[in-house]
Amino acid sequence: MRNISEDTITQAVLAAMSGCKNDRLHTVMISLVQHLHSFAREVKLTESEWTYAINFLTEVGHITDDKRQEFILLSDTLGLSMLTTTQNNSKPPTCTETTVLGPFFVEGSPDYENGEDISNGAAGLPCFVTGHVRGLHGEAVPNATLEVWQSDEDGNYDVQYAAKQQAEVKHQGRGRLRTLADGRFHFRSILAEAYPIPHDGPVGRMLEALGRHPWRPAHLHFWINAAGYEPLITHIFRNGDKYLDSDAVFGVRSTLVADWIEHPAGVAPDGTLMDTPFYTLDYEFVLNPVGAAS
Amino acid sequence: MRNISEDTITQAVLAAMSGCKNDRLHTVMISLVQHLHSFAREVKLTESEWTYAINFLTEVGHITDDKRQEFILLSDTLGLSMLTTTQNNSKPPTCTETTVLGPFFVEGSPDYENGEDISNGAAGLPCFVTGHVRGLHGEAVPNATLEVWQSDEDGNYDVQYAAKQQAEVKHQGRGRLRTLADGRFHFRSILAEAYPIPHDGPVGRMLEALGRHPWRPAHLHFWINAAGYEPLITHIFRNGDKYLDSDAVFGVRSTLVADWIEHPAGVAPDGTLMDTPFYTLDYEFVLNPVGAAS
Ligand SMILES: [Fe+2]
Ligand SMILES: [Fe+2]
Repeated sequence: MRNISEDTITQAVLAAMSGCKNDRLHTVMISLVQHLHSFAREVKLTESEWTYAINFLTEVGHITDDKRQEFILLSDTLGLSMLTTTQNNSKPPTCTETTVLGPFFVEGSPDYENGEDISNGAAGLPCFVTGHVRGLHGEAVPNATLEVWQSDEDGNYDVQYAAKQQAEVKHQGRGRLRTLADGRFHFRSILAEAYPIPHDGPVGRMLEALGRHPWRPAHLHFWINAAGYEPLITHIFRNGDKYLDSDAVFGVRSTLVADWIEHPAGVAPDGTLMDTPFYTLDYEFVLNPVGAAS
Repeated sequence: MRNISEDTITQAVLAAMSGCKNDRLHTVMISLVQHLHSFAREVKLTESEWTYAINFLTEVGHITDDKRQEFILLSDTLGLSMLTTTQNNSKPPTCTETTVLGPFFVEGSPDYENGEDISNGAAGLPCFVTGHVRGLHGEAVPNATLEVWQSDEDGNYDVQYAAKQQAEVKHQGRGRLRTLADGRFHFRSILAEAYPIPHDGPVGRMLEALGRHPWRPAHLHFWINAAGYEPLITHIFRNGDKYLDSDAVFGVRSTLVADWIEHPAGVAPDGTLMDTPFYTLDYEFVLNPVGAAS
């Protein structure tokens, strides 16, 4: 311990943790320290780069608040979120795939009945969404809870607007529904549009320095929970979007890409007479039963 | 990009950065992403562990301000700081070794003349420090700038006290001196004592969970700059301290351990008649000339 060199520091840190009583934490931290040190050695990290990294992380911490989670953006843009999601959600191939949660989910969004408009005034072209929730063997899943959330036509989620505006109209473009007895659900919302992740902070600067854009292809978020099935966190991506092959957070799966169909003004699926064009989307989710092989 | 799996995500992230125009950044980020992903795969990081990590880093960010740098504490306690310091400061073996800067250095600390008392009222037993700054070939280094800083007898640096107290008495136990024509310096301060790094935050909780203590052996910080020589950031550690073999930040080098000699009340080296016991410390620093072989 008194003559630690660049070659022995890793062993010294591991030895210091040898009294850890939490086996899993111990395992995780041994691997973390080894990889952190291997990285620093491999690139021969300089002192000014270390200082840059400390300041970068400090800035990530200071821009993070209860509305903005820059550490999640950092994890998402470095592919760590998608890696974690993927390696923990292997499922039979016919089940709907999982993708990243993202930073814009909000606890306690409002309950809606099937058929209601969850946009709650968010700006965008009307979109009527229908779908089913089924189990692995094709069975209907009634009474499943669907959390749905999306951005508006300007690419913003409600929580990205100023506090004052949100105090007036809370929870736009997000809501909670339940499937009907036959596993069906349907609601009205707005057309999902591509949007850039928040890029006016340190993660945005990182992307720019790396020659990367901050855009995500248009998508609709779902988080589905049903008794007897594994929870499903996913998005449906809009076919034809120009960012499908360069999602800033690496979340696209080809099985999650679906067609949003454009319709001229006229009668909507729910019977409403629409005086503007509108879109429809239909998607079937397949849940993995708890305890099923993966 | 549309069918990224846990096996292909790393390549997808690297491909996304292929347009990076900053070669060094590109190199660093390729290694960072590879090691980050290898770590997550090796431990099969779970989603709840990922969430825990996001919340941990958020807390590290939120406790960090202009007085407290929890990211530096994190880097220090994981050995990254000492690794970075060591691999960037290889020197001829007779030069004084480098150790970590730590989180308590402050820009703009007050200038003192040799012989003055830099404690500025900080609590502790009196200590008279003398020393030389020499070059690799034994030559005296006059007019070198020495930044000195230390904790008080309660183990606190001045910046750890409440803002109100600091507004009354700023800069205790820290100061800037210059070596005399013969490379000598001398000042009065207080006895360095072992102290725990700030451990009432997330890093303290991490240490506890790992079965580690937060203590550092007693030491006096120096940052020496002189024209024609490499800067030297180091500490002198107090011989006999019980934490010399378990420094929480892995900073001890045996060549940096020195004797603080206790004296009974009586005449101090500077001629002052002391009515309490006091300590003396003498140390010779050897600087590496700029451009010397390492
Ligand atoms: Fe999203
Ligand atoms: Fe210190």
